[in-house]
Amino acid sequence: MNNDSIPYKTYLTEAEVPTAWYNLRADMQKKPAPLLNPGTLQPVTAEELEHVFCTELVKQELDDTTPFIPIPDEVQKFYRMFRPSPLIRAYFLERALGTPAKIYYKFEGNNTSGSHKLNSAVAQAYYAKAQGLKGVTTETGAGQWGTALSMACAFFGLDCQVYMVKCSYEQKPFRREVMRTYGANVTPSPSMKTNVGRAINAAHPGTTGSLGCAISEAVEAAVSQEGYRYVLGSVLAQVLLHQSIIGLEAKAAFDKLGVKPDVIIGCAGGGSNLGGLIAPFMGEKLRGEADYRIIAVEPASCPSFTRGRYAYDFCDTGKVCPLQKMYTLGHDFIPSASHAGGLRYHGMSATLSELYDQKMMEARAVEQTSVFAAAEQFARVEGILPAPESSHAIRAAIDEALRCKAEGKEETILFGLTGTGYFDMVAYEKFNDGSMCDYLPTDADLAASFAKLPKV
Amino acid sequence: MNNDSIPYKTYLTEAEVPTAWYNLRADMQKKPAPLLNPGTLQPVTAEELEHVFCTELVKQELDDTTPFIPIPDEVQKFYRMFRPSPLIRAYFLERALGTPAKIYYKFEGNNTSGSHKLNSAVAQAYYAKAQGLKGVTTETGAGQWGTALSMACAFFGLDCQVYMVKCSYEQKPFRREVMRTYGANVTPSPSMKTNVGRAINAAHPGTTGSLGCAISEAVEAAVSQEGYRYVLGSVLAQVLLHQSIIGLEAKAAFDKLGVKPDVIIGCAGGGSNLGGLIAPFMGEKLRGEADYRIIAVEPASCPSFTRGRYAYDFCDTGKVCPLQKMYTLGHDFIPSASHAGGLRYHGMSATLSELYDQKMMEARAVEQTSVFAAAEQFARVEGILPAPESSHAIRAAIDEALRCKAEGKEETILFGLTGTGYFDMVAYEKFNDGSMCDYLPTDADLAASFAKLPKV
Repeated sequence: MNNDSIPYKTYLTEAEVPTAWYNLRADMQKKPAPLLNPGTLQPVTAEELEHVFCTELVKQELDDTTPFIPIPDEVQKFYRMFRPSPLIRAYFLERALGTPAKIYYKFEGNNTSGSHKLNSAVAQAYYAKAQGLKGVTTETGAGQWGTALSMACAFFGLDCQVYMVKCSYEQKPFRREVMRTYGANVTPSPSMKTNVGRAINAAHPGTTGSLGCAISEAVEAAVSQEGYRYVLGSVLAQVLLHQSIIGLEAKAAFDKLGVKPDVIIGCAGGGSNLGGLIAPFMGEKLRGEADYRIIAVEPASCPSFTRGRYAYDFCDTGKVCPLQKMYTLGHDFIPSASHAGGLRYHGMSATLSELYDQKMMEARAVEQTSVFAAAEQFARVEGILPAPESSHAIRAAIDEALRCKAEGKEETILFGLTGTGYFDMVAYEKFNDGSMCDYLPTDADLAASFAKLPKV
Repeated sequence: MNNDSIPYKTYLTEAEVPTAWYNLRADMQKKPAPLLNPGTLQPVTAEELEHVFCTELVKQELDDTTPFIPIPDEVQKFYRMFRPSPLIRAYFLERALGTPAKIYYKFEGNNTSGSHKLNSAVAQAYYAKAQGLKGVTTETGAGQWGTALSMACAFFGLDCQVYMVKCSYEQKPFRREVMRTYGANVTPSPSMKTNVGRAINAAHPGTTGSLGCAISEAVEAAVSQEGYRYVLGSVLAQVLLHQSIIGLEAKAAFDKLGVKPDVIIGCAGGGSNLGGLIAPFMGEKLRGEADYRIIAVEPASCPSFTRGRYAYDFCDTGKVCPLQKMYTLGHDFIPSASHAGGLRYHGMSATLSELYDQKMMEARAVEQTSVFAAAEQFARVEGILPAPESSHAIRAAIDEALRCKAEGKEETILFGLTGTGYFDMVAYEKFNDGSMCDYLPTDADLAASFAKLPKV
């Protein structure tokens, strides 16, 4: 297809939508390092994990050899509520930038959770229901994962208990109401409901919390209630597996259009959206079938890839979860209260960490004021008000398109627009008022945090 | 196509998207009554209207004979940002209700304005720009129209001044920030910026405002600034014309599926969404080519059709706009501060009023607590958190589906889901807390208001 006859939006038909998730680890020669039991520091067993996670999800977590895992029928049906998502050609942004680059984005924001998080939430809720559980517990940062899980639990009739990072709970008051409308219980974290929450509050009075704290609380809540398990919205291999639907759809749409991207860009917090978006493209790269530049974009305030260490670390502040080998800023690192709540995580997916260590992808850190400037520029021409998290990817996509302009290159750029910013208006207000700041951790902050990495 | 093999979502391709709007009045034997000049009470002339409205829009307003009006190329391009919108088969809602009815909805919420309002906003901004204007003024109730106009003005580089009904301004604090992000100026109405605003504040101290007040302020602001015109998001024939894209797409999708709806339902405030949704179906009905039950659903707190008078009345509280023959509660009627800000208008589209008077459609009024109960039921199974306005249509669609169940009938129901409720969480919070009330005007309230109808 001629590049200028590409439609603004490409939707797959229901028949073209993928029916299996793609497990990127199956194509990795050197696999991500195994999870370790936090007590014994030995590789964790399925049996140990099943106290915390649903049985089927443990299988998926530990399976690094099966390339395709069928999507259950009920999950495929639920996906039809909001999938396929469109692959959008950003003609208006290209025109505004005056770039010869061709810019595409895969838009995951057209659902009430406001993001891609629903892709994994429905899968995890489905397996919990199939196992006969009463309910699940979880953490949420920006609130997108919590909303997604609330929606999935409402659909399957499961109880849903959400520990929401206090900083986001306060910045996004209406998120709580969306979750309540879907029947969930929402608690600001750190709370006084759990042992670990009380300990964190005692150690850091007035803390605005972090994903690491909220995870510890949710895990404690799951293991201390009969018929409950903990579910997680990012970081884990199972989540990246479910999120591969993003990349699979994007690749199928590109194949249908006869287009091949040169550069693929995603924001990176725990890695769920980036890992999902790049999965099939990275698979081709690993198998030597194609080459792509792949760029992870993270906040300068929480720069796991660009300033972190590749080491075993705890996934949560309370040290109740398994240890994972990953790029990390240290489990004790509490990022500043930036407005991309979904990216405020000290670590990173083990799969993406290993791929970054193998130099299969690049990473860059960007400051939030430049991120919101990109968000506003994008909103005014493309008509979608983006989430602060996704706007990190927009920043990098615009920068790459301007590089193409300077170099006179017609590269094809794909980025992941994971969500909408309708619940982030406090952040936009600060940006509109000119009162938004950038926060960078000092080298001393990081050194102190690295000193607490476990000795494995 | 077999009814059960219908996809969850049907999208037209870009080639199938309509390229002309449909002017329903062309097929009406008895036309809507002409607008009257508020000073002379004579039919208003194009020249008089051009002081207030853009020239091309005046032509459209007064043209009740041309059936199809081409959509300008730039508007068609902008439409591709968010159109075609999906026609969705509500399989999950059908299952939850256990009804043999087939339920479809045309979903207009997948754009940042959160509603169908963008369909007309982009058209009006385009004509203002083409006329060489500096900017436009408008009113907004729930904020959807103001957001849509801000988006359209940002795209075309026009100044945008929005008078927002104070009640909604306070209930939806973040709406203002979305509009600001798109570069608009937003003023709560009644304000102290205009003569009419000051007069209304003096006469009704502490008033929470109404669309009627805000319109008067915006019109005054337009005519008192060089290079500005006033634009309106509902009620007018030009708006219904632009909104016909909703119905045209819905009908094209039904034709593609080989399905014909029996019942068509839309919420009715000023009539823009209802008029747009039903346009081509009503056209067939007027031409005797097909029959449909068409139902307008309005709030019991602002029941223009079901308790209003069909009479000439002022469109705005300040009496600066032309008079229109319509179903009205009286221009002095200030509806209670219900949570469907977009439906708090004392009057109704002249076209729809005439059709209702001709008994071509039905109307019913519903109370807001039952509306939010329907909204929550819908959200939990269909995964979309609906706007309070659209939820009036959901209430009626559910009631019709339950009637079908009781009667064992397999009717096909179409309703318009005009928007999302992401900025309506204060309302959902009240519903979740059980503190939401229903407000009905008394007969005495209405009698007092009717007594002030102009003698024409």
